[in-house]
Amino acid sequence: MHFGDSLTAATKEKSPVCVGLDPNVSKLPEGISQDAEGMLTFCKGIIDAVKDTAACVKPQMAYFEELGWEGMRVFWETCSYAKEQNLLVIADGKRNDIGSTCEAYAQAYLNELSPIDALTVSPYLGFDGINPFIEQCDKNNKGIFVLVKTSNPSSGELQDLPCGDEAVHEHLAQLVEAHAAQHCGPESHLSCIGAVVGATYPEEMKYLRTLMPHVPILIPGYGAQGGGAADVLGGFIPDGTGAIVNSSRDIIFASSGPDWKEAAEKATADMAEDIKNALM
Amino acid sequence: MHFGDSLTAATKEKSPVCVGLDPNVSKLPEGISQDAEGMLTFCKGIIDAVKDTAACVKPQMAYFEELGWEGMRVFWETCSYAKEQNLLVIADGKRNDIGSTCEAYAQAYLNELSPIDALTVSPYLGFDGINPFIEQCDKNNKGIFVLVKTSNPSSGELQDLPCGDEAVHEHLAQLVEAHAAQHCGPESHLSCIGAVVGATYPEEMKYLRTLMPHVPILIPGYGAQGGGAADVLGGFIPDGTGAIVNSSRDIIFASSGPDWKEAAEKATADMAEDIKNALM
Repeated sequence: MHFGDSLTAATKEKSPVCVGLDPNVSKLPEGISQDAEGMLTFCKGIIDAVKDTAACVKPQMAYFEELGWEGMRVFWETCSYAKEQNLLVIADGKRNDIGSTCEAYAQAYLNELSPIDALTVSPYLGFDGINPFIEQCDKNNKGIFVLVKTSNPSSGELQDLPCGDEAVHEHLAQLVEAHAAQHCGPESHLSCIGAVVGATYPEEMKYLRTLMPHVPILIPGYGAQGGGAADVLGGFIPDGTGAIVNSSRDIIFASSGPDWKEAAEKATADMAEDIKNALM
Repeated sequence: MHFGDSLTAATKEKSPVCVGLDPNVSKLPEGISQDAEGMLTFCKGIIDAVKDTAACVKPQMAYFEELGWEGMRVFWETCSYAKEQNLLVIADGKRNDIGSTCEAYAQAYLNELSPIDALTVSPYLGFDGINPFIEQCDKNNKGIFVLVKTSNPSSGELQDLPCGDEAVHEHLAQLVEAHAAQHCGPESHLSCIGAVVGATYPEEMKYLRTLMPHVPILIPGYGAQGGGAADVLGGFIPDGTGAIVNSSRDIIFASSGPDWKEAAEKATADMAEDIKNALM
């Protein structure tokens, strides 16, 4: 199924919640070893806890890479396990390069047999650094999320620079939409080309939604990073799809005690409920 | 030793040549298996061939990641082997993220025991996404190279957008210099914070050198991507240091026959000679 359609279906069936798997080994719950084995145990436990409520998980590659190649083995096992549990898997790697190197990244993560459904990508190189990913998306029903406007304090240093009447990220949003509109799913009319827009700028979110009508929006920054249910509404389209909202620490580290799985399950359900109520 | 100083010393001792290790498995020379084992054999062979002439090698992470965690094991073995052969190792990963995730990337690649000397990073997130790398640079004598102006055709889509009197990448160059000037080596007066500037824009290169007097410049795009010795001159400072020039395919795939090591050695020596002559 086209990625825009599968994302929409998962949102309707479960919720627009995406659970960020940021398995910082120094923060794993009591009793779990601070190594690759413990990381895998933890990720599988979180996946089991959230799989009925969340549409997606988003493994953050940095934490796996921090453990070297052993960490990357855990990354791939985590992605495969999540896929088996019927979750969409968004690898958060913010990869970017050009030409044959970009093709290698696209092949690495979005090949036909990959358990990964979508990858985050960074746009500074222009669409030379994005088109090779789109080719794999078209061939293998995969997706990408392009960084457009992020939620960190210094995001404005480049993203908000004024270029004529618009900011850099608004210009980028229109480039993304122009490409995205050519790659829409037959049912959802949403593209396999998505965008990342932080939850801490609700007015900007509404405006970017109007600039990118065909683009699924991945919204990080919910919870620990400061955004709430009201702040993410602008990312959705009127039928309550078109956006997925990520929370990491507030869910996966909801408890550091023996009830960490139950706490993660509850935090996911609470977040889904909060967003559902806000969308009414 | 501070990274700015060690880069300068290696440039003076050997040459400003950086050999890009882009081990595309489908292009490995005859007789080398197209798998992780073959990739390691190839990378070690290239390192042996170029170690006396090149200052640095630049493993391109995408090609290693393409082989999954087994490829990442080869990546780390390649970096360690290059370090043992007295080469500076620049991991080309173009990593970027914020907060604790960025710290995880910095820890992953620039920790005290890492064989990697420097990492390429992508700037779209602003300095929130760069400062955690700088902290590791200061602690562990490591370096980074921030993408400023790349050599691909679509690089202008964001990098050349006009913001007032200057382009986005020129604005970024001044931000990079402002940070870089605070982190200079005592001998070279060059920073551990470098920049990537493509070889295909020689006039722009000269201008960016004036905007970033303390910044080591990593120049890709030599050879196969179109730039020649005359095109890179503007990246150097008057004493012939301050820049390293990367070539990948023209060196590592100089021959696909049994003489691939000798061909790589010769291509590296020829390139070093060409740049030396151009700098005179």
